[in-house]
Amino acid sequence: MDESNKALRIVVVGGVAGGASAATRARRVNSKADITLLERNSVVSFANCGLPYHVGGEIEKRQSLIVAKKELFWNRFRIHVKTDCEAVKIDRVEKLVHILDRDSGVFTTIPYDRLILATGAEPNVPDYCVPMPSNAFHLWTLADMDGIMAKLADGKVANALVVGGGFVGLEVVEQLHRRGVHVTLVERNPQILTRLDRVFAKMVENHIASKSVAMELGNPIVSLKQENGIAVSATLKDGRTLPLDLLIVGAGVRPRTQLASECGLNLGKEGGIEVNDVMQTSDPNIYAVGDIVEYQNGVTGKRGLNPLAGPANRSGRVAGTHAATGHSELMGPVFGTSIVRVFDLTAACTGLNERALAAIGIEFRTAIIQAAHHASYFPGSESMQLKILYSPKDGKLLGAQAVGGEGVDKRIDILATAMYFGGTVFQLAQLDLAYAPPYGSAKDPIHMAAFAACNDLNGTPVLALPNAELTGMQIVDVRTASEREKLPLPGAIAIEVDDFPTHLSELDPERATVVVCHSGKRAHVAASWLRSSGFKNVSNLTGGMSIRSLVEKVK
Amino acid sequence: MDESNKALRIVVVGGVAGGASAATRARRVNSKADITLLERNSVVSFANCGLPYHVGGEIEKRQSLIVAKKELFWNRFRIHVKTDCEAVKIDRVEKLVHILDRDSGVFTTIPYDRLILATGAEPNVPDYCVPMPSNAFHLWTLADMDGIMAKLADGKVANALVVGGGFVGLEVVEQLHRRGVHVTLVERNPQILTRLDRVFAKMVENHIASKSVAMELGNPIVSLKQENGIAVSATLKDGRTLPLDLLIVGAGVRPRTQLASECGLNLGKEGGIEVNDVMQTSDPNIYAVGDIVEYQNGVTGKRGLNPLAGPANRSGRVAGTHAATGHSELMGPVFGTSIVRVFDLTAACTGLNERALAAIGIEFRTAIIQAAHHASYFPGSESMQLKILYSPKDGKLLGAQAVGGEGVDKRIDILATAMYFGGTVFQLAQLDLAYAPPYGSAKDPIHMAAFAACNDLNGTPVLALPNAELTGMQIVDVRTASEREKLPLPGAIAIEVDDFPTHLSELDPERATVVVCHSGKRAHVAASWLRSSGFKNVSNLTGGMSIRSLVEKVK
Repeated sequence: MDESNKALRIVVVGGVAGGASAATRARRVNSKADITLLERNSVVSFANCGLPYHVGGEIEKRQSLIVAKKELFWNRFRIHVKTDCEAVKIDRVEKLVHILDRDSGVFTTIPYDRLILATGAEPNVPDYCVPMPSNAFHLWTLADMDGIMAKLADGKVANALVVGGGFVGLEVVEQLHRRGVHVTLVERNPQILTRLDRVFAKMVENHIASKSVAMELGNPIVSLKQENGIAVSATLKDGRTLPLDLLIVGAGVRPRTQLASECGLNLGKEGGIEVNDVMQTSDPNIYAVGDIVEYQNGVTGKRGLNPLAGPANRSGRVAGTHAATGHSELMGPVFGTSIVRVFDLTAACTGLNERALAAIGIEFRTAIIQAAHHASYFPGSESMQLKILYSPKDGKLLGAQAVGGEGVDKRIDILATAMYFGGTVFQLAQLDLAYAPPYGSAKDPIHMAAFAACNDLNGTPVLALPNAELTGMQIVDVRTASEREKLPLPGAIAIEVDDFPTHLSELDPERATVVVCHSGKRAHVAASWLRSSGFKNVSNLTGGMSIRSLVEKVK
Repeated sequence: MDESNKALRIVVVGGVAGGASAATRARRVNSKADITLLERNSVVSFANCGLPYHVGGEIEKRQSLIVAKKELFWNRFRIHVKTDCEAVKIDRVEKLVHILDRDSGVFTTIPYDRLILATGAEPNVPDYCVPMPSNAFHLWTLADMDGIMAKLADGKVANALVVGGGFVGLEVVEQLHRRGVHVTLVERNPQILTRLDRVFAKMVENHIASKSVAMELGNPIVSLKQENGIAVSATLKDGRTLPLDLLIVGAGVRPRTQLASECGLNLGKEGGIEVNDVMQTSDPNIYAVGDIVEYQNGVTGKRGLNPLAGPANRSGRVAGTHAATGHSELMGPVFGTSIVRVFDLTAACTGLNERALAAIGIEFRTAIIQAAHHASYFPGSESMQLKILYSPKDGKLLGAQAVGGEGVDKRIDILATAMYFGGTVFQLAQLDLAYAPPYGSAKDPIHMAAFAACNDLNGTPVLALPNAELTGMQIVDVRTASEREKLPLPGAIAIEVDDFPTHLSELDPERATVVVCHSGKRAHVAASWLRSSGFKNVSNLTGGMSIRSLVEKVK
């Protein structure tokens, strides 16, 4: 098929969100196809994930963000790139894309045999930003970034408001802080990073607060005061007014599906384009990739939006192959695996969180551990909190979250890999991971989390949730006196773990008992004593006081 | 069973290699068992993997290496620890362990219901070290380390010879170098790190050489000259004599199976103790764990030695659970996943290497890529070479090796996880990994390696091995002029990748053609042009000249 005589005409709409990947892949598997890439902006392929880091100067050169130039597409791949060229309409009967040259204002058409839509997402615009003040910006395109940089360059930005505690929002907060700007983060939800459960988000919030960044959580902007088209202050839900010199709006994105919906392609429940496993839309000659499609979720099996760069690239590759040859590998499921650096912390997750699991009625259990990223006796070990969610039926992994220093990315990727294969916590406990003191521990944090979950499922002993209601239970605190002083646990019987064997008789084996320490590790030892000594109902508070103390702060 | 009235007597022989893990786990699942841990050394549990780092001062305090003291075992776990106590014989009929108190010289016996052997490995002693000179040391125990430290402390060590280019040997080389000692590494094999294939080992060798450490590869010591019990020089196979003040012998280890074999327990083909999936030996009341057993290999399904800390810990946990309760999760397969830091480089691997696969007749194919550990536009990106081995039949992963900077550990662990689940390169290409510029790329090195392998198996196009015989082939070099000058490829037709589309006609489509660039990435683009333009037989030299140039050095 790919070597047929008539050149197959492939048109790709959009360069950034999987389009460049699709076009170059199509070329690599089909030397004869006539491939055109249409991009409405002036740069066909740039590193959108890098934009925040140039704002703060961490990525020094703007040029570094330009992934591939128009000339490269032609010289290396013989792909016609038309920049500043907007696709405005698809005629599926005639197989034509109507395009507008944004420079000249001229409308033309371009015929296709296969069309690949990679129009990406666009930022949501809150009502108070209509009309958009001249000192308010998204951070989605190079033009957005250039606007912010120019505003910062005038030296008059003392106070910035960043709307949205998602990935981009937090990256911008850090980079503005790096430039010496006083930053306030405004988030309408009661927590940042809604892909994380509240306690894990809280760890990140505490870290941000430690950097003297102000946060307004659950307290959105209700109005802006503008003077001559410049926003000068914002009024929040609680009535307070904050002065501002710069406003960055990261209020989420939505898929740019207008082209697709206007030509009658099926959309899914979340408003993204419906595609099959080779990225074909309801019209088999039209493919869609990247932020505009609904991917299959690996946990639920259901389709939904997942605007992230990894899947965009991979789906582009699949669509490019299939469009150019008629066959390809399939697009794999997505797990929403994602990561963000927030100052000195890393936060990452994969799969579903508690909220998402509860919302669709999937039963789950939770294990949380605290561990060092490598052997604690080796210098430089950094700590992480790692949470896994798994099925009570068979131990199948459903999701994971981690917040900490070095090594968070590795653990989340291992978990994402295990989840891809439908792995259980029992299998996780068996993984043969690389160990030397600079890299890990003989029992890796992955194993420790798996062991905790296996104990939970085997009842050796079970885990209690960090927010468990302890009133009425026999609470046993096995921490040291100084730990208890720092984070008191009212109503608990204090028996330090190393005194435990001689004090067992002081406890009532008939009462429901929960054992607590700082992280859950010593409590496991003590709870194990109780359980195998015949206590009827024993649990270990997962995550210990380090997590419990946060629960109380997010109630 | 674990709550029966008669206390189950569990005896564990050996603390370090999985024994402490077994004993403490046994306690956690059985509060009533009478548990005794016998250790022939004076410290029951120490971080043996950390020893080299204390020699060089990277781990400052000796105390940091002591994992758990005797008192902790008693206070927290009610485990009787007998140190300086050697198990000398097992009476399986009477269920007695005969022990020698090394302090007092008194022999006694201790009865068991369940016995767990964790006697670990011991270092091989080359003939030339019999008798062992007073300035020659292994680095296997705290006593070894103390001896080396004392020797170094006298300030007279100018030249050290380290025998053995395995993990410990290389760690010692680095740490002695750190202390300003001139080090020569002597390895009888023609390469260091025999778990890696030669080219990957060569990268590490080049790095070591760049640190002014001398290496004698394939040139073992044949004799030592001793004066008053002190080794003063070593004569190598090639006849040269090297002066020395300190000799460190890391000539491999062998399992300490004497106790087991003398009491008639079955040994396996590699001389380790035969065990089942719950770590029971041929006597179901006797378990064995750690370096002395033959684990099931996850690639071959066969059993063999694998003296590494991770499996020792996990097998200890399994044996401890089963010995104490009669049931447990199963021990998972091992993949020989391992890692070592060598100065600024990391080398790691999992599964089988080419040599091992060839030796047992498993067909394999090879893909090698060079990639940045995170987005190359983000500051601080470090490079790695990543090699995967996979089945030509179904793409199943068989092994992986990586050498480079940051992020090598993550990629090997992801691959080890995929291998545990029997993953293929097609599945690897679908993994949903975490991406943000400080941590990875939208197409992770894992994906790049998988894509290369998928192309190879799909023929889009196939990969040629780094050591492929190119004579007689049409060789196309798509590198730049300056790259060609640095690493010439004789006999090649030079067409830079971006000139390729216009120069296709200069090549003969009927000839077997191989395309070459620096890493294999641009060559893939060019080879794809040729393949889909109808060239009959096209391949891409995997790993490019960066690897090919090393092949020529290891021939």
